[in-house]
Amino acid sequence: MSETTVGRTAAAGPGAAHVPDAPVVPVVPAELLRLRSSIDNIDAALIHLLAERFKATQQVGVLKAEEHLPAADPAREEQQIARLRALADESGLDPVFAEKFLAFVVAEVIHHHEQIASGQHEQPGSTGNRSAGPAERTA
Amino acid sequence: MSETTVGRTAAAGPGAAHVPDAPVVPVVPAELLRLRSSIDNIDAALIHLLAERFKATQQVGVLKAEEHLPAADPAREEQQIARLRALADESGLDPVFAEKFLAFVVAEVIHHHEQIASGQHEQPGSTGNRSAGPAERTA
Repeated sequence: MSETTVGRTAAAGPGAAHVPDAPVVPVVPAELLRLRSSIDNIDAALIHLLAERFKATQQVGVLKAEEHLPAADPAREEQQIARLRALADESGLDPVFAEKFLAFVVAEVIHHHEQIASGQHEQPGSTGNRSAGPAERTA
Repeated sequence: MSETTVGRTAAAGPGAAHVPDAPVVPVVPAELLRLRSSIDNIDAALIHLLAERFKATQQVGVLKAEEHLPAADPAREEQQIARLRALADESGLDPVFAEKFLAFVVAEVIHHHEQIASGQHEQPGSTGNRSAGPAERTA
């Protein structure tokens, strides 16, 4: 059922003919569709930037494994948190959310670095429970 | 202590003068610094895009509250997941991670919409446990 359906009952029972104009499926206002289109564009940009970020961190992982550096780097992460909180504040984003976001991404990166160090190789941004994807073949 | 410190002991004790070249702090290779600089640029872009996304979802929240639409919209979220998984696959990002990322952001958005619907007003991307920030004043 489309969410743009207007003025239709969800299930036309025996008594439905008596209330033909009762909207059960919510109408999606044009302004909401416009905003969703912008959100979709932003999401596409976010996905592509995340893909690029994981390409860079995968290279970092290889380098760290070669140089026998630890996967996690608390000093570096502290600098990143401070910087992203400041950038968030400037751009009107909650710094607490920005920090949570970085932690979310870094957790994935560290997991990935540990896999590189242990000799495994995986798609950037992988959660570790899937088979080889396109990134392995094109990296 | 800077992580770029080279060939210095972490703490110069009484015996430190006898081993002046012993590196305790790991050397950060130039290639790693180059990659980190790119990651920092990507992160700045991500933060600004997230700020923009929350500006849009905040407008969505206001609209939904006005129209008495529910904060969560499973049909819309299903479409977003399918689309982002496809975009992730194209760009070499693990689709599983892309889906986790969307869930992470949407959870914040729904929390925010519920607050708008209940008459509260907060900074975009807020986790709900801080006082009013700059976004309230400039939105």
